[in-house]
Amino acid sequence: MTEPNPESSVGLVTPRIEHFEQAIELDCGVTLDAYDICFETYGTLNAARDNAVLVCHALSGDHHAAGYHSPDDRKPGWWDNCIGPGKPIDTERFFVVCPNNLGGCGGSTGPLAVRPGTGKRYGPDFPIVTVRDWVESQARLADRLGIDTWAAVIGGSLGGMQVLQWAIDFPTRLRHAVVIAAAPRLSTQNIAFNEIARQAIRSDPNFHDGHYYEHDVIPEHGLKLARMVGHITYLSDDVLHTKFGRELRAGKINFGFGVEFEIESYLRYQGESFVGRFDANTYLLMTKSLDYFDPAQAFDGNLTRAVAGCQARFLVISFSSDWRFSPARSREIVRALLDCDHDVSYVDIESDLGHDSFLLPIPQYHKVLASYFRRIEVQA
Amino acid sequence: MTEPNPESSVGLVTPRIEHFEQAIELDCGVTLDAYDICFETYGTLNAARDNAVLVCHALSGDHHAAGYHSPDDRKPGWWDNCIGPGKPIDTERFFVVCPNNLGGCGGSTGPLAVRPGTGKRYGPDFPIVTVRDWVESQARLADRLGIDTWAAVIGGSLGGMQVLQWAIDFPTRLRHAVVIAAAPRLSTQNIAFNEIARQAIRSDPNFHDGHYYEHDVIPEHGLKLARMVGHITYLSDDVLHTKFGRELRAGKINFGFGVEFEIESYLRYQGESFVGRFDANTYLLMTKSLDYFDPAQAFDGNLTRAVAGCQARFLVISFSSDWRFSPARSREIVRALLDCDHDVSYVDIESDLGHDSFLLPIPQYHKVLASYFRRIEVQA
Repeated sequence: MTEPNPESSVGLVTPRIEHFEQAIELDCGVTLDAYDICFETYGTLNAARDNAVLVCHALSGDHHAAGYHSPDDRKPGWWDNCIGPGKPIDTERFFVVCPNNLGGCGGSTGPLAVRPGTGKRYGPDFPIVTVRDWVESQARLADRLGIDTWAAVIGGSLGGMQVLQWAIDFPTRLRHAVVIAAAPRLSTQNIAFNEIARQAIRSDPNFHDGHYYEHDVIPEHGLKLARMVGHITYLSDDVLHTKFGRELRAGKINFGFGVEFEIESYLRYQGESFVGRFDANTYLLMTKSLDYFDPAQAFDGNLTRAVAGCQARFLVISFSSDWRFSPARSREIVRALLDCDHDVSYVDIESDLGHDSFLLPIPQYHKVLASYFRRIEVQA
Repeated sequence: MTEPNPESSVGLVTPRIEHFEQAIELDCGVTLDAYDICFETYGTLNAARDNAVLVCHALSGDHHAAGYHSPDDRKPGWWDNCIGPGKPIDTERFFVVCPNNLGGCGGSTGPLAVRPGTGKRYGPDFPIVTVRDWVESQARLADRLGIDTWAAVIGGSLGGMQVLQWAIDFPTRLRHAVVIAAAPRLSTQNIAFNEIARQAIRSDPNFHDGHYYEHDVIPEHGLKLARMVGHITYLSDDVLHTKFGRELRAGKINFGFGVEFEIESYLRYQGESFVGRFDANTYLLMTKSLDYFDPAQAFDGNLTRAVAGCQARFLVISFSSDWRFSPARSREIVRALLDCDHDVSYVDIESDLGHDSFLLPIPQYHKVLASYFRRIEVQA
């Protein structure tokens, strides 16, 4: 791991909100007449407007990808190790845009937003959004910002799915597509884990069919469990072993149900800290977007045909110990792209850190990203 | 898969209960002054008393391993495909004993039992039992039945752990040890999954700190979630894909939170049917027994030294797609036994059915078991 270098931070950033009065018809059939997209930008859009990079966030991410909101912040944005001056996505060269997805809980319109004309939050009535819907809303944000073509669209996990959808839906509006730790669609096991997360949230008595805001509670036990389940799938068996092994909190077994093993303490902490910062209805929506993503479906399950019209150059990255979206899943994407003679680079990064690798400053990974981005041409 | 053959069933069986007034001091320090062990037997103990086989059950198993309790039973015991006349554990030759473990909910003393002198169920006050405690109580049952030495002790998963402990604790009381789909101790990831199961149960408002019987409720949502989490780890990614794929219940996505994918329906069903037949406090105890099992711990983590004194011959079996207790975990056991020059056979069975394989009539697996048991000598 490389040590964080505060010198290379984008510094203090302020989220922006764009309001769209332009109705958006979602995949589910519901039309939103108006909505907000909350986003952050880092770096400067050049005169040619050809240096913009779109960063798509994953399940529990948001628009705050880099820098700090206040000098007192203890932590920077979720991908600060990758975005900044001199970093792989170099803000001295690129203008980086990271929006919170529609349906999110970071400031874009979602379950927490007040539904027009009702005075109440959308809550469970917020429609289920798909990866395609997100890409459409991101394209409209690009229009608003005067960005006709992205130099690159990049994302990991659910973010990588958005990148793939971008390349399919708007082939001429991105020059490079960087798909990290993703899959062309979820496996049955992936869906099974998501279903458990949903059941955990929905069976919490504090869920109140999603109307928990009105009861002034949150389904904290359910959301905590959902996060704990997710967390196991983000980490490899090896890294769990290395980080926690079978270490006992108190040095010995106490024959009780309090925390005994360090891993228990870690999981409980991860679950509890998530409860304070993420909305349960959004979590439910996000898992559904994941389950539904399947761009090959419209082509009789043929991914090659789904990506045939893509024009972007691709960089696909997987991580050796990722068992949530294993390297084999990335290679399905690579194979389909190669079948179409698309320009694709593929790297499987040796890492024992599991799916979480995509968020971490693994030297080999960042080297690959940095050299790829250096070769993306932008006008001065 | 071989078709079930009703001709080879042990037929109608009746559980028996042995009451022990003999105090047992448990690993946790608590002493039980008296307890019951509920068990079933199949076949006949021969005059030489050398044909007895002990079957140890796993996490959610019980004493009902074979045959039927009533002619109306829709399903036989949990290992009926393996135990019976002409089956791998052939009841024409062997006298098979299967007890419900102490702390269980099948009839042996556990959380559901009334605590002497209180008129109330033990509930959460039933002490945490370990694999060693079970082996001790099983040895006492053997004494009671007049079995000095088992022809074999056999079990899968948590049952396999009991077999290993038997060979360590009572080296002269078993001639063969058959350890299936087990591990010498849980991995960090295994503990993490158990912890989620426990948190699911314990955070259910109906749990009432384990005193749910007194409130006339059961923590059904929690127990259901625990079982769903477990179930994912019992099956391989491949078998989930083959059995359920991404098939949609209604043929199409309905953008809602009801059952959409077949896998969701399956998991919910598995969870719900478990709630009706298993006690939540017992489930908690069983996961703790799993977490604590670590026979090498007393030998500075050296498994070879832990098994040095074993005298049984071993058959160790793993399944290629088992990711809960992978073949590598079985090989740790095999390596330690070989280091001691013990007599050990090891087979990794090619199967895409995951950890659940140990319960299924996979032809190659049953062939190995059958031929191993045929070679176990017993007097006529």
